[in-house]
Amino acid sequence: MRVLGVDPGLTRCGVGVVEGVAGRPLTMIGVGVVRTPADAELGHRLVAIEQGIEEWLDTYRPEVVAVERVFSQHNVSTVMGTAQASAVAMLCAARRGLPVALHTPSEVKAAVTGSGRADKAQIGAMVTRLLRLAEPPKPADAADALALAICHIWRAPAQNRLQQAVALHASKGRTR
Amino acid sequence: MRVLGVDPGLTRCGVGVVEGVAGRPLTMIGVGVVRTPADAELGHRLVAIEQGIEEWLDTYRPEVVAVERVFSQHNVSTVMGTAQASAVAMLCAARRGLPVALHTPSEVKAAVTGSGRADKAQIGAMVTRLLRLAEPPKPADAADALALAICHIWRAPAQNRLQQAVALHASKGRTR
Repeated sequence: MRVLGVDPGLTRCGVGVVEGVAGRPLTMIGVGVVRTPADAELGHRLVAIEQGIEEWLDTYRPEVVAVERVFSQHNVSTVMGTAQASAVAMLCAARRGLPVALHTPSEVKAAVTGSGRADKAQIGAMVTRLLRLAEPPKPADAADALALAICHIWRAPAQNRLQQAVALHASKGRTR
Repeated sequence: MRVLGVDPGLTRCGVGVVEGVAGRPLTMIGVGVVRTPADAELGHRLVAIEQGIEEWLDTYRPEVVAVERVFSQHNVSTVMGTAQASAVAMLCAARRGLPVALHTPSEVKAAVTGSGRADKAQIGAMVTRLLRLAEPPKPADAADALALAICHIWRAPAQNRLQQAVALHASKGRTR
């Protein structure tokens, strides 16, 4: 499974592609950041993010896109820009028919470090170890994008089983 | 000036096209709502909003798109969806090179009713009167979209003068 993780943001949108399956060593395929100038108009920044995400989708052809689920409770000053950047990433993926998975920051932290309250340094260290990199990816947004992709690969089997169970239950309900 | 007003929302995205200039009677060119099913996946809803906005842009060819500025303080439960829908509207406009204007809800209310704290009924009544309609546009999201377009037409001259003054000041600063 090849997953593009997106840590959404207007100024820095982290992107990272990871390939692998749960229970096997994972491989980093690419990592980077889509940046937009803080003094540009919001509409133009969203267009730049769209172009950046499209390039990553074209180049790396992921099967799934995992995006950080944005909560309105956190970082009130930046949350609107984060929500808008995440919308562009989801739009680009869904327009191509790619499944979009959302994971909360604490799900991602718990998946890669074992603790939902891990800090940036811990996430960077675990991403470096899990992907067997020479050093932590910089900036933190890039490491977070890789952590999202890893989280998705590890959580997907459980989510699939859950979805199958729900679907089975629903189909049984219909035949009753 | 022909303006497309967008009252962003995932379930109901109000759209309204108004033509005119400040100080002259205004004309409603079109009004409607782009709807997406609440049980659809978020990515698919954003794609549906993109398609809907694109259709409105294709059909009515506005010169400017006015979108409600979303604040994270209001309606915490729906604000993320509103921010995401607004991102799609801004993206569609900016991608075509159309200027995107943002107006706050209180600016819109003050522009069309004289009070920044007007209620939905008051806005509907004033939109009906200003555009010489037979009855208030329904749902309220459609009326709000028209109010945004009206607000933009009336505020644009002042905003242009301000931008000109800022640009003049900046160019003077450079030649010093």
